[in-house]
Amino acid sequence: MKVYKKAILPLGFAASAVSCGIKKSGKPDLALFYSDIFAKASCKFTKNCLAAAPIKVNKEILKTGRDFQAIIVNSGNANAFTGVIGIKDTKEISRSLAGYLGISYKNILSASTGIIGRRLPVDKIKRVIPALVRNLSLEGINQAKKAILTTDTFAKEITVRFQIGKVTVTVCGIAKGAGMIAPDMATMLCFILTDANITKRAMDNALSKAVDNSFNCITVDGCMSTNDSLMLLANGASNNHLIDLHANFDIFMSALGKVCLELSKMIVRDAEGATKFIRITVKEAASFKEAKAAALAIANSNLFKTAIYGENPNFGRIVAAIGASGVRAREDKLKVKVSNLNRKDIFVDVSLGQAKASATIYTSDLTPAYIKINARYN
Amino acid sequence: MKVYKKAILPLGFAASAVSCGIKKSGKPDLALFYSDIFAKASCKFTKNCLAAAPIKVNKEILKTGRDFQAIIVNSGNANAFTGVIGIKDTKEISRSLAGYLGISYKNILSASTGIIGRRLPVDKIKRVIPALVRNLSLEGINQAKKAILTTDTFAKEITVRFQIGKVTVTVCGIAKGAGMIAPDMATMLCFILTDANITKRAMDNALSKAVDNSFNCITVDGCMSTNDSLMLLANGASNNHLIDLHANFDIFMSALGKVCLELSKMIVRDAEGATKFIRITVKEAASFKEAKAAALAIANSNLFKTAIYGENPNFGRIVAAIGASGVRAREDKLKVKVSNLNRKDIFVDVSLGQAKASATIYTSDLTPAYIKINARYN
Repeated sequence: MKVYKKAILPLGFAASAVSCGIKKSGKPDLALFYSDIFAKASCKFTKNCLAAAPIKVNKEILKTGRDFQAIIVNSGNANAFTGVIGIKDTKEISRSLAGYLGISYKNILSASTGIIGRRLPVDKIKRVIPALVRNLSLEGINQAKKAILTTDTFAKEITVRFQIGKVTVTVCGIAKGAGMIAPDMATMLCFILTDANITKRAMDNALSKAVDNSFNCITVDGCMSTNDSLMLLANGASNNHLIDLHANFDIFMSALGKVCLELSKMIVRDAEGATKFIRITVKEAASFKEAKAAALAIANSNLFKTAIYGENPNFGRIVAAIGASGVRAREDKLKVKVSNLNRKDIFVDVSLGQAKASATIYTSDLTPAYIKINARYN
Repeated sequence: MKVYKKAILPLGFAASAVSCGIKKSGKPDLALFYSDIFAKASCKFTKNCLAAAPIKVNKEILKTGRDFQAIIVNSGNANAFTGVIGIKDTKEISRSLAGYLGISYKNILSASTGIIGRRLPVDKIKRVIPALVRNLSLEGINQAKKAILTTDTFAKEITVRFQIGKVTVTVCGIAKGAGMIAPDMATMLCFILTDANITKRAMDNALSKAVDNSFNCITVDGCMSTNDSLMLLANGASNNHLIDLHANFDIFMSALGKVCLELSKMIVRDAEGATKFIRITVKEAASFKEAKAAALAIANSNLFKTAIYGENPNFGRIVAAIGASGVRAREDKLKVKVSNLNRKDIFVDVSLGQAKASATIYTSDLTPAYIKINARYN
């Protein structure tokens, strides 16, 4: 398994990006990912019950179980809390794109990120779709990975390659984060493209496992977005011997797991205003669920996060967060260890002294810069 | 019913405070509340499973159902996460105080607030107990109300008086907050003293109702303390016609409710670093539980709190918080109204459009000053 710290498109894929004018800065804000041939899709969406319009449209399309050829993404506007008009707008853009690509709008997935409660500028977007299609290329991924960003300070990208027999399979992931699990300018989006030849069942299974150990283990501010979306497209172009639950599954799982974990760590490293990258591991818990609940309670405690920012060894805050988490902890069994606070990477190790389950959560500190960014943005 | 914005001790009570040297500033850090005659007690303690030593000791004593004559409180040290030694320390201080008061240590309740994980300076405290007892007076409440504070910028105090026949009953409450529902230097403590002649059943019932509509409806940072304590003592000294669930209950309930609500609002007004006082009301919910869950989700959203600090009309954040709260909300029924953001008092009104239940939560904004206070304190 080889890991590349940049996005390299798998066989059969192309990408592009343009500026359509949503971002005031004039930076690219519309991206397209395209596969020459039909690809299977596995997707994960936010559990926020007020999910954005593109998520509603995707879910509707995914129910019919079709294959896909394109993902269109805009940044700067979330198309959330926009009602039936928002759904109509997403479909209108998809239909326009479908016309230029010569496919059905039902072969297209959509994602939006940005401010909540404003209508998409549909005409502006439709006007640049011809250019978006015309620009499709292998190198286009380098524009596309930037066009999906909002308050992010760097693009999140990774590629993993592995062999099945003599065939090389590529898994390429790009993501945006910033405030993460957070509404408006901080939505998590992730697109993973692979030329693997794989069954839908194996894709779904691998993605659920990979997400449980990566994107579901990070938190910046505990806020759940209306727009979180993760889309995995597999077009089979590498022509490898079919991957199924019982054939070549482990190697694919490793590659996908690596892509998801590295992207999720990059999102935490680039969290709004963050000065620290914090790994919290809770061990010796009664179950994985309890270990994760305790680790998340620490990670989402504002008092813990400000203490880490201030390099303040006030570890009582960790104890208080565990005690409030709902997890049964016993004072006489609890052990807390924290690494040197004047480094950028901080490790918190908690032992509950109960059984053998453990969980790891990644998070950032809470800083005046986070407040500055979010107090001003609109 | 008459309301006084200061603490006035009811009949039969006295108070005092001294400096024992826990606070580096040398300010008073040890307080005593005393009743000449036995008083009944109703108490509420934190649900944090790693509760502080004094809470464990109080619970043990309260199980025996005894009456009480004193509450001793120290600030600057929480006596939490201190194991069996912490329990021993609390009892040793109570026994010493009991000796000087000529009562049993089982007639004394204890409370601590401050840093977690450090041992109480028992000898320093025992040394000043004679002075603490000697200083007991009616006016002592004015020192005691300050000695329980930590990062608070003002004392929280209120007195309500009402008539039962020709008898005047007094209910006096003092509290400390600052970070509220927050560990270490931000624990909520509240002491309510009354000369009402009331049954234990009526006291317990009234306190539960009053707390549900006051202290359980405020949040500053969503962090639950190891030390939260609310103690109500009723010594019956006013000799009013007995208050029970079916006799004079409503007037007592009103007075106690007023004391709790006003103190809890003062705690929010004095939240660490706060520049805004925010009232969030969720109406037309399916149940009180759902209304409260939605209101709390908004109140605990860092993105909402920073938006209010920045006077940033980014109301999508309110929508996202409701959607993530677990409450079933429907986009087409949801209405959100926010008052003028450039005032100190902000009102957020949400209608879920489902049924008739409603709930109100009070909270503060999240500011760089909150981070500064908590990044440095240890």
